[in-house]
Amino acid sequence: MVDKDFSNGAAWMAQEIMPVGKAAIPVTDWGLTHSDITYDVVHVWDGRFFRMDDYLQRFQRSLAKCRLSVDQSADDMRRILHQIVARSGLDRSYVSMVASRGQPSVPGSRDPRLCDNHFYAWCVPFVWVFLEEVVQRGAHLKVPETISRIATESVDPTAKNYHWGDFTQGLFEAKEAGFDNTLLLDHDGHVTEGPGFNVFMVKDGKVRTPRSGVLEGITRKVAMEICEHHGVPVTEQDISLADFLEADEVFATTTGGGPVPITRINERVFSNDAPGEVTRQFNQTYWAWHEDPAMSEKVNADY
Amino acid sequence: MVDKDFSNGAAWMAQEIMPVGKAAIPVTDWGLTHSDITYDVVHVWDGRFFRMDDYLQRFQRSLAKCRLSVDQSADDMRRILHQIVARSGLDRSYVSMVASRGQPSVPGSRDPRLCDNHFYAWCVPFVWVFLEEVVQRGAHLKVPETISRIATESVDPTAKNYHWGDFTQGLFEAKEAGFDNTLLLDHDGHVTEGPGFNVFMVKDGKVRTPRSGVLEGITRKVAMEICEHHGVPVTEQDISLADFLEADEVFATTTGGGPVPITRINERVFSNDAPGEVTRQFNQTYWAWHEDPAMSEKVNADY
Repeated sequence: MVDKDFSNGAAWMAQEIMPVGKAAIPVTDWGLTHSDITYDVVHVWDGRFFRMDDYLQRFQRSLAKCRLSVDQSADDMRRILHQIVARSGLDRSYVSMVASRGQPSVPGSRDPRLCDNHFYAWCVPFVWVFLEEVVQRGAHLKVPETISRIATESVDPTAKNYHWGDFTQGLFEAKEAGFDNTLLLDHDGHVTEGPGFNVFMVKDGKVRTPRSGVLEGITRKVAMEICEHHGVPVTEQDISLADFLEADEVFATTTGGGPVPITRINERVFSNDAPGEVTRQFNQTYWAWHEDPAMSEKVNADY
Repeated sequence: MVDKDFSNGAAWMAQEIMPVGKAAIPVTDWGLTHSDITYDVVHVWDGRFFRMDDYLQRFQRSLAKCRLSVDQSADDMRRILHQIVARSGLDRSYVSMVASRGQPSVPGSRDPRLCDNHFYAWCVPFVWVFLEEVVQRGAHLKVPETISRIATESVDPTAKNYHWGDFTQGLFEAKEAGFDNTLLLDHDGHVTEGPGFNVFMVKDGKVRTPRSGVLEGITRKVAMEICEHHGVPVTEQDISLADFLEADEVFATTTGGGPVPITRINERVFSNDAPGEVTRQFNQTYWAWHEDPAMSEKVNADY
């Protein structure tokens, strides 16, 4: 019974729960053909959703920014996410919620206001944005010289989106040069983000992270709370690449792995080519917080 | 027999032809989740494909630019397009060919080089990018003040893509202000293109069209050939909005309708608020060329 095999994950679509491999969207859906779609990703670790409220609230903000309207309330979404993870049986999971423009109710129309928007969700085994061996030794990032992050004036990065053309090009360039991942600058040369992660720099005991042109990451937010928890000053500001490369220590933050050490950017080597002390401490706190009931909730099939 | 109803169009996917409504891609396909996908659209008019070679060749160039590699040759694609249109029975059709990154063969990988790329195609009844009544009176376009076209340094517009976030925002703004469509400027204030169309200006008997930051439209190319045919000088160059608004006459070009008059941009009214003479002449030539066997080929189920 292939249809009952949930080992690769589960999905919710059009009121039904199905194995993730069965969930598909029409080739004519504007979510695909115009990338007119927004999403969010929350994770489950050892049977508990982490910071669910934060992710759900950001997703509601993304919906509003994209002028998408779906039938499901935030509470409905929470219930659906609990149900699919419970059905999948996954103890550690990457859980995606998505809202698509859909298709116009008037055939042939090109008016986004006339489309039937729709919500769906899916979960798969936990995705590490950086492989485990990379987390151990620290990630190596390449900043491409000729590829810029899509500008805020074109696509708002705070409405989480699938416009990854710049990242994809950067990834190809990075991989081919032997790096693990890419980090993009904006048109003014400020550091922005990489595919699926924000970045932080530590310099003289203070922490800084790019202020604009980036996703307001939940793990970024948690990292700033961890700074406060440890009494480390943290600021959001524009940071040039030159300034960033002056850091004592650098790390990434992602739902797909928490705070992750970065040990090389282009030719520059940080913290003696090994994960830095601040990152190690933050990483520990991050995973410890997963057991705090104020920050996490148990997966519950009957939610 | 819903499965045999091809009246809405047909699709080819994974070696099978199916009604277009049955064609869908997995919610985890990177073509969707990273908009890591390229496409092209050729049209069929009165049973004949127009300029098929041009569209197929551009699609091959887009594949190379996106580093996508599929099993089908250009000849295979041509055969597939003939087959789906023949099966649909559509006499006038919008025919889409698509290549997606697919998914990594190594589960959990984030490396685009490890993905199984795939090709598919679909056709639906002909899509007018501008409604017939709009073509009759001339289109009204709004140039948004705060939304810029995604820059070439971020996503190459000459590799036809689904990154439409900037267009979608522009469309909402235009529709809400009572305009038909939107036209975007680049970061330097030069005129670029609209969703699915290039633009041209006519001034003192000479024709100009934006040089860079735009799709190299096939209908744009045909319009330049029509200029030559009628002995009208035509150049590709950077054009500021102020210069563009000085035109005597303005038109759009799109596979979804050919040369289409534009009679208003923002507050500016062109050619006495009626389709201009050059556009009318070009439109006539454009449709006449559809009957030229050197430029078109008959849909053939046994191609």
